[in-house]
Order: sequence, then structure tokens, then C-alpha cells
Amino acid sequence: MPAIRAYAAHTAGGPLQPFEFDPGPLGDEDVEITVEHCGICHSDLAMIDSEWFPASYPLVPGHEVVGRITALGAHAKGRQIGQRVGVGWHSSSCTHCDFCLGGEQHLCGKRQPTLIGRHGGFADRLRAHWSWAVPLPGGLDPAAAGPLMCGGGTVFLPFVLHAIKPTDRVGVVGIGGLGHIAVKFARAWGCEVTAFTSSASKRDEALALGAHKTVSSVDKAELKAAAGSLDFLLITVGAALHWDALLATLAPKGRMHLVGVVTEAMALKSGGLLSWQKGLSASPTPPPSVLKTMLDFSARHRILPQVERFPMSRVNDALDHLRSGKARYRVVLDADF
Amino acid sequence: MPAIRAYAAHTAGGPLQPFEFDPGPLGDEDVEITVEHCGICHSDLAMIDSEWFPASYPLVPGHEVVGRITALGAHAKGRQIGQRVGVGWHSSSCTHCDFCLGGEQHLCGKRQPTLIGRHGGFADRLRAHWSWAVPLPGGLDPAAAGPLMCGGGTVFLPFVLHAIKPTDRVGVVGIGGLGHIAVKFARAWGCEVTAFTSSASKRDEALALGAHKTVSSVDKAELKAAAGSLDFLLITVGAALHWDALLATLAPKGRMHLVGVVTEAMALKSGGLLSWQKGLSASPTPPPSVLKTMLDFSARHRILPQVERFPMSRVNDALDHLRSGKARYRVVLDADF
Repeated sequence: MPAIRAYAAHTAGGPLQPFEFDPGPLGDEDVEITVEHCGICHSDLAMIDSEWFPASYPLVPGHEVVGRITALGAHAKGRQIGQRVGVGWHSSSCTHCDFCLGGEQHLCGKRQPTLIGRHGGFADRLRAHWSWAVPLPGGLDPAAAGPLMCGGGTVFLPFVLHAIKPTDRVGVVGIGGLGHIAVKFARAWGCEVTAFTSSASKRDEALALGAHKTVSSVDKAELKAAAGSLDFLLITVGAALHWDALLATLAPKGRMHLVGVVTEAMALKSGGLLSWQKGLSASPTPPPSVLKTMLDFSARHRILPQVERFPMSRVNDALDHLRSGKARYRVVLDADF
Repeated sequence: MPAIRAYAAHTAGGPLQPFEFDPGPLGDEDVEITVEHCGICHSDLAMIDSEWFPASYPLVPGHEVVGRITALGAHAKGRQIGQRVGVGWHSSSCTHCDFCLGGEQHLCGKRQPTLIGRHGGFADRLRAHWSWAVPLPGGLDPAAAGPLMCGGGTVFLPFVLHAIKPTDRVGVVGIGGLGHIAVKFARAWGCEVTAFTSSASKRDEALALGAHKTVSSVDKAELKAAAGSLDFLLITVGAALHWDALLATLAPKGRMHLVGVVTEAMALKSGGLLSWQKGLSASPTPPPSVLKTMLDFSARHRILPQVERFPMSRVNDALDHLRSGKARYRVVLDADF
């Protein structure tokens, strides 16, 4: 196999530079994908910056990949050469533990993140276990579908896990890369949708995305006025928030659910949960079956992330744009090797 | 109606003293119960002491009442004179809101605590809406059944809410008034039961109550050794605990559930929830239908709280005994007016 051409960070927070590596022989159960597009997720920035833990360098980011299968391992199943697939945060799992056998491969103890201990999708080619290379349904623009594989799946899984009903009142906190997709999903799910944002300029945008109303996520008076009005509140940001005030926006039996890694410990008063039987939960990125369901739902409802595109050769400009907070809402790299 | 004879605190933390009050005419939908026994709950102490918020005095504690109906309001339904009933934390609700109509009267916005804004069960008589005076099934010793009405119901509701399965591995943190009943319920529910206690002397007691094994709730090495081993962890104490270490005892998809009011804010790291899809929840005391189910389950499995009994005239001795931490495990007052 020829070397894989990629872009790698060589130091924490450093610029990405062209980088080649030998991928070795293709695993029997793996597929090789020629990358067409790769979204940039905030967790790519976190990994480049060693924000969560010290990362290993050189580090090739990228875990919102869309591309075509161009090589099949000897025992890869259900995939064909030329098939367009997406790969997200995970690229393999053990396939034989209780979670893998139970369809919850995302909880496998050996789940393999696409860009940790191996190289990710800012590259001309990417490998993944066939089961994690999820076929893209027709009708989804491949240039915009990449961010569905991590950002989309991340905000879709809670709807499935908690059996959100179309009659539920759903709040989405943070209208960014994840939150703007969550608003679209919640609207298509049939719910009453409230968008919470700290940015005045995003309030109209949130309504355009499908929210029925907006609430400031930082104005305590507005939060107080929304008390008791929601059944489900999806937190898509990693920042420290007014947790008690947000919990108070839930009606009895309401649930606050986190999908962003909040690095600062959350100080919660148990009374905010106990008296009205509320809950707090969180989830990572989904298993292949839920990715598949999410892609089908997105295709049927014509839901795509709103993206800004950069050629992959301008990856550092793209990263800077995302870091600036000005991206609307997800940045996608087009492979141009 | 003659005056009700009771014991009341007149100052925060002060001793209880004989106290009489005129209950006024019996409400149309109420029943009057001649108190036979009344358990003492830690929330009685919290109210006497104004621990949660400034209480109103004189304050008649008591909300784990067993007695016989001796008067019926004109529109009381389904109850008879002479019937033995129990009353717990709540003694009425509005009966017409969505929660009341939906069978979740414990979440009614006008749910009425038995000892707040009215007088409780340390008295010769107590009144309650007929629906909250739950008939006691035969086969339950009435002298020990009182603590089922609050402590028992409180730890039973989570099993119902979260559809705990007999195949689940259940941990109970705190082997006291609530926890010792929770261990019995979890064992009868068919679960593998682990008792967590900070008291070395309670480890054997927990095994005798039905736990399969015990873990120290304060020894970090023991907690670490239990990592990933539980599906459901019921926190029955109100103290600040090693929250992250306790969350880590949960397997993927595990849930930590609080039934004790933790007055200190809980500092939680979101990563402990997110990465393995865990949850935190809490619940108050149950609605009448769940109290009924709990009493039936208790009667069928011969589950009763382990109690120490004092005549009600010695209520201050009984309170001191509970405060000392030496009660095994619940204290019950026998009415002796």
C-alpha cells in the first residue's frame, strides 16, 4: 500500500503540517476509504491542544469522514468497493463483548476512537472496521454529511436513548456545531423546541433553524421565566453554565442531558433533582445502528448540517475559523491531495 | 370535634412538649385517623431543627402514621370507619391537575406535606385526604409498618420509576432507616445486592438484612475495586460522598439515584457520566398507587422495617436515640395518650 498523506499536529496546539505514514497491511475486517470530506469537530481542537489529556504527536485529527470504499479486507462484510460511507468518532470495537453483541458497540471496552492511538481523517485515506463504516443513504449531500457522523450522531442518540416523544418540550442549549443540528432533529421529531443561546445574534438564526422560541442561556431573569417549561434539555456545550437555573427550566420528571464534555466539575444541588423527580444524564457518540437510523432520518427529513467548506490544504485557516467562534456552524474540509 | 392532643417543638431544635389544637371541622374529602403508631424519620429531625429552611412553630412532627379511621368526611371515597391505614410524607394533593389525574399525585403543585403548614402524626389523631390514607394489607404488623409509609415508599419508588430488573446489580449506600429497607426490597426484587456503609459494624448487619456483599463507602481502595460492577446505585444518605468514585462503581449505562436530601452541592465531573452513558436521578416520596403496591409487595415478601419502639410520651428520648445514630434502624412511637 502507498503511504497515507495527511495533516498532523506535531506539538500541543501547534499548526498542522503535511505528514505521511505507512498504514501497513489492511486488516482482514477493515475497509479503506478514500476521503472526500472531513468535518472539524471541537474535539479535534481539544485533541490538537491536549485539552482533555496529553495527546500523542504526531496527531492526525479528523473523525467526521465521508468517502468511498477503495479497498476491502478479506473478511469485511456487507460493504462494496465504491460504496460511499461515513465514519465518526469510533472506527472499531471488539465485536465479541456483551456490548458489541448487544448492539451497543459504542460502550465496548475496546472501542477505538478514530484519532487516538491511530490516525484520523485529515488524510487522503482512512481505515475502519467495516461495521463502523456506515453506508450513506442517497439524498444526503456528501459534502455536508460528514458532521452528521460525530456531531449529528452525538445529539441524535439522546432522542433514542430516552425515547423522546413528539409531544415533549425540548430545549437545546448552545447553538453551534452540535446544537444547530439538534434543533433541526428536535423540530423534525415533532417536538416543541426552545433554543438557549448566550449570543443575541444567534436567536434569529435559531428560529430559522426550526426553534419555536429562544431563551438566553446566561440571563438569569429569562431562565427564571422559563422555569418548569421543558421535558428534556440537551446541553451541547462544554462550558460551565447556570446548572441550577437550567435544571429549574425542567418540568417535573424532566431530564437534563449532556453531550459536551464539561471540563469543570458541575456543582449541583440535589434538591433541584429530588423534589420534582428530575434526572441528569449524558452520552457519548452512538453505535453503528443508531448512526444508520440517524442518517436515514436525516435523509427523509432533508436535515443537513449548515457547513462552511475549506480545501484540506487550508486546514490551518479552517481550524482558525472554528477557533474564532465565527463558524456557521460546522467546518468541512474537502480533500484536495 | 375535641382538641387534638399532640407533641410540638416550639423553637428550632427545642424539646417537644404536649400541645393541643382545635382541628376545626373535618374536610369533606378527608378522613380522621386515630393514631396507633408513628415512625420517626430524619426529615422530622430536619424540620424540628429548621435544617432545610426556617420551619413554623409550634411544629408537630410525624409522617409515618398507622392508625384506624374514626371519622369520614361527607365525600370521602373507598374508606370505612375502623379501617387501618397508613399516611406518609404527603397527606393531600389537588386531585385535578395533570399529575393528579395521571396518577402522579406526588408531583402535584399543591401536594401537601403532612407536617408543613399543618400538624403531623405525633398526635392522637391525624387527618388526610382519603386518597393519601392508604389501606394497610393484612399480614403487616401495624406497629412496624409506619416507616414503610415514608422511608419504605421513598426507597421503593426508584425500583418502579426505573424499571429495575431482577437481573440488575443493585448497590445501596447507607444502611440506616431507609437503606436497611432498600436492601430488603432489592433482595426480594431478585437483584444482586451490594451494601455500602461507612460503619464496619454494619457490614455483618447488612449481610443479615439480605445483601450479598458489602463495600466500604469511604475507603477509596474498596470503592475502586468495585468499579464498573453495578447497574443501579441507590444513595439513601444526605451526606457529601465520594461522588466520582461512587459513579465509577457503575457499569456502562448505570444509574445513581438519590433519595436523601444532600444539603451540600455535589461536585460532579461530566466525564464520569458521559463516556459510559451513565445517569443521575432523584425522587421524592411516592404517589398513593405506588404506596399501595409497596405495601402489597412488603406483605407478600414479609418485609418490615426493623424498629425500636418508644411510647409517644417519651418522644424526646426517642428523638435523642435517633440523633445518637444508634437506632437499629427505625424508631416508632406508640400512641399512649
